[in-house]
Amino acid sequence: MPSEPLLVTSRFYVVEVDRPLADGSIRTRAVVRHPGAVTIVPMIDDDHVCLIRNFRVSVNQTLIELPAGTLEPPEPADQAAHRELVEETGYEAGAMQELHQFYLSPGILDEKMHLFLATDLKEVGAAREAGEEIENLIVPWQEAIELVESRRIQDAKTISGLLLYDRIRSRNS
Amino acid sequence: MPSEPLLVTSRFYVVEVDRPLADGSIRTRAVVRHPGAVTIVPMIDDDHVCLIRNFRVSVNQTLIELPAGTLEPPEPADQAAHRELVEETGYEAGAMQELHQFYLSPGILDEKMHLFLATDLKEVGAAREAGEEIENLIVPWQEAIELVESRRIQDAKTISGLLLYDRIRSRNS
Repeated sequence: MPSEPLLVTSRFYVVEVDRPLADGSIRTRAVVRHPGAVTIVPMIDDDHVCLIRNFRVSVNQTLIELPAGTLEPPEPADQAAHRELVEETGYEAGAMQELHQFYLSPGILDEKMHLFLATDLKEVGAAREAGEEIENLIVPWQEAIELVESRRIQDAKTISGLLLYDRIRSRNS
Repeated sequence: MPSEPLLVTSRFYVVEVDRPLADGSIRTRAVVRHPGAVTIVPMIDDDHVCLIRNFRVSVNQTLIELPAGTLEPPEPADQAAHRELVEETGYEAGAMQELHQFYLSPGILDEKMHLFLATDLKEVGAAREAGEEIENLIVPWQEAIELVESRRIQDAKTISGLLLYDRIRSRNS
């Protein structure tokens, strides 16, 4: 039976998990539980992607990222991707395709990120949440890749998302 | 002045951070503090990389990953990379080169990952910590990339590390 959480916050909670080991002993580890998240590669046209500049309280700096946000269960991931894309960038997507799924820090955190490609975009106006300090940064595709290679982009979901979609683009071109 | 942590565990702690907003209000958010980590692309030879299969308690499954581990401050990142590579895979690196740095989940977690390329490897025997359920998975480079593209690899640091180094390999070939 799961034990009581060690801590509950508005965005995650922390539990202790027991793992029986081969030698018969039990290892107990603290794990951060998270509802999961979505991140989106939003293509404004064939050659431009909409990144964001996002002030991050946890690291006290503005990072260049793909738009992203937390799942609101039981909301399906593709619906969350549509919602977060409009909220953060002001673009509504005509098509939303899942490209990949990955864990972010599985040593301590169960957060799973669903990566989507958004196309057929229409500008409808952003609806950023109170306190979100976000602005759009629309760049040519090759410039986005150069921001990764020059280490200006320092966010794992953004590096993964841009480089994964770059391989798909290369295969299709 | 920083307030008392909400929770302290052996591998991370949780604090509340205040952020003054443009409208004069203050947003308070819970943030997970972590000492940072290293991950390594260990090249056995020009065409083979040493991945690991790693059972992850947080997601209750075995993931295919690059070897990695937590910094033990004040230990420098490159020293941690040497230490973790031996502990997890049994390989000692003759050369360790930093390729990139990235945050893993900056919405809630300040963990920064340092990515290294390890070359000139020599087998000296693994020294896995009690409870680590890890085994080596040595594959040709192209197979590692295919494990990413087929979604068998579902770990952000591993996707980022393999695709970043693949671009460097392509440029140099």
